Amino acid sequence: MYRLYYSPGACSLAAHIILEELGLPFELELRSALKGSGTQTPEYLSVNPKGRVPALQSSSGDIGGVGGVLTELPAILFFLAVRHPEGHLLPCEPGAQARCIEWLNWLSGTVHTLAYGQIWRPQRVLDDPSCFPDVVAMGIKNVERDYAFIEHQLRTLPDTESFTIVHPVLLVFWLWGKCIGLDMSKKYPMWAHTMSLVIERPAVRRALATEGIDLGLFT
Amino acid sequence: MYRLYYSPGACSLAAHIILEELGLPFELELRSALKGSGTQTPEYLSVNPKGRVPALQSSSGDIGGVGGVLTELPAILFFLAVRHPEGHLLPCEPGAQARCIEWLNWLSGTVHTLAYGQIWRPQRVLDDPSCFPDVVAMGIKNVERDYAFIEHQLRTLPDTESFTIVHPVLLVFWLWGKCIGLDMSKKYPMWAHTMSLVIERPAVRRALATEGIDLGLFT
Ligand SMILES: N[C@@H](CCC(=O)N[C@@H](CS)C(=O)NCC(=O)O)C(=O)O
Ligand SMILES: N[C@@H](CCC(=O)N[C@@H](CS)C(=O)NCC(=O)O)C(=O)O
Repeated sequence: MYRLYYSPGACSLAAHIILEELGLPFELELRSALKGSGTQTPEYLSVNPKGRVPALQSSSGDIGGVGGVLTELPAILFFLAVRHPEGHLLPCEPGAQARCIEWLNWLSGTVHTLAYGQIWRPQRVLDDPSCFPDVVAMGIKNVERDYAFIEHQLRTLPDTESFTIVHPVLLVFWLWGKCIGLDMSKKYPMWAHTMSLVIERPAVRRALATEGIDLGLFT
Repeated sequence: MYRLYYSPGACSLAAHIILEELGLPFELELRSALKGSGTQTPEYLSVNPKGRVPALQSSSGDIGGVGGVLTELPAILFFLAVRHPEGHLLPCEPGAQARCIEWLNWLSGTVHTLAYGQIWRPQRVLDDPSCFPDVVAMGIKNVERDYAFIEHQLRTLPDTESFTIVHPVLLVFWLWGKCIGLDMSKKYPMWAHTMSLVIERPAVRRALATEGIDLGLFT
């Protein structure tokens, strides 16, 4: 039994999708990332000192012999895929696995932490509010540069035609692109095609429905 | 035979150390990260469109069936450790592997890309040079918060007493802390102890010597 700390539409959605894909018993614990209202409370900071979602707990005990929740989306996705190989969510060959980690690390650090951090939490980048608009503007430029790179690099995704732990992360960034007003289908046709296959999956639809996310956002 | 694109003292040092640890034949290709002088050239951008080091090539062919170099330090470290299990650089159990990826992803995204990005490349965060000092100041605050977290969390590192692919990354961040003027040994005694063991390793010493890094920086 797993417990996933999540916030609707946050990057935790990717972990939620993988739990659905694996057909494992799990429970969701809501901690809203909106303005940190659920993630920056003393209660949640005692669960996850980083104050972020996703965070994963396993009722079968400590993960990796270490107490406390497992954090960092790429680590959670990797853990679930390797711990439950019957799901075939990660290629077996070391090089192909490394390519997945290459994607996950770049999406997490460069796209999420840096570019979206600038857009959604400029106060974590600098103190002076008069500089915030400049930070946000450069964040949007960074997202657009990164998204062009995603579109171009999609062909290097191991098993593009099937489904890996990278796919639900691309789904999250698709949604966020919509959120900041990018014309996703028009600008990124290859990515749109990948998404059209991903949202056919029953597990993906279940997770989206639970988080209240409209399927119309993918067309 | 591997080829590693590197810059002395950059995060590529961690990959360099792992190549030395594995005792594999490899060659180094210098592309200086200083002001992007070696990383932002048309020649290097054609090798690695991200314009960053490290990047890894294998003479035995495409990594993961994908053309082009393997990028992202965590992916390179993971690949080398899993492809060469005789080096025992990564625990075998999925949970312990995930804990290593949790460390690597956080160090790469939160500490390197965000916090050091603010300090060393504020121009990637916003346009207006009059805001740069504010970005740098908050970057230093972020590094100090993250370093306190490292010191506190070191006990959760799988195989703290031995050596994993996380250790050489901690070594790089130790050096960078020195670089920005933090009193590392005084502020972070547990980390200092870990480093004192790491620099005893002949492979680590070889890599440091090749990159011209003084052992005195670790005391
Ligand atoms: N590097 C972390 C980032 C996690 C993260 O920033 N999550 C956001 C939601 S998408 C969050 O919890 N924000 C709440 C906050 O910053 O207080 C990961 O990959 O898991
Ligand atoms: N996310 C990348 C970051 C790599 C990176 O930013 N490397 C720096 C050196 S430590 C670099 O190449 N900088 C040169 C530049 O930005 O032009 C990774 O984990 O490998």
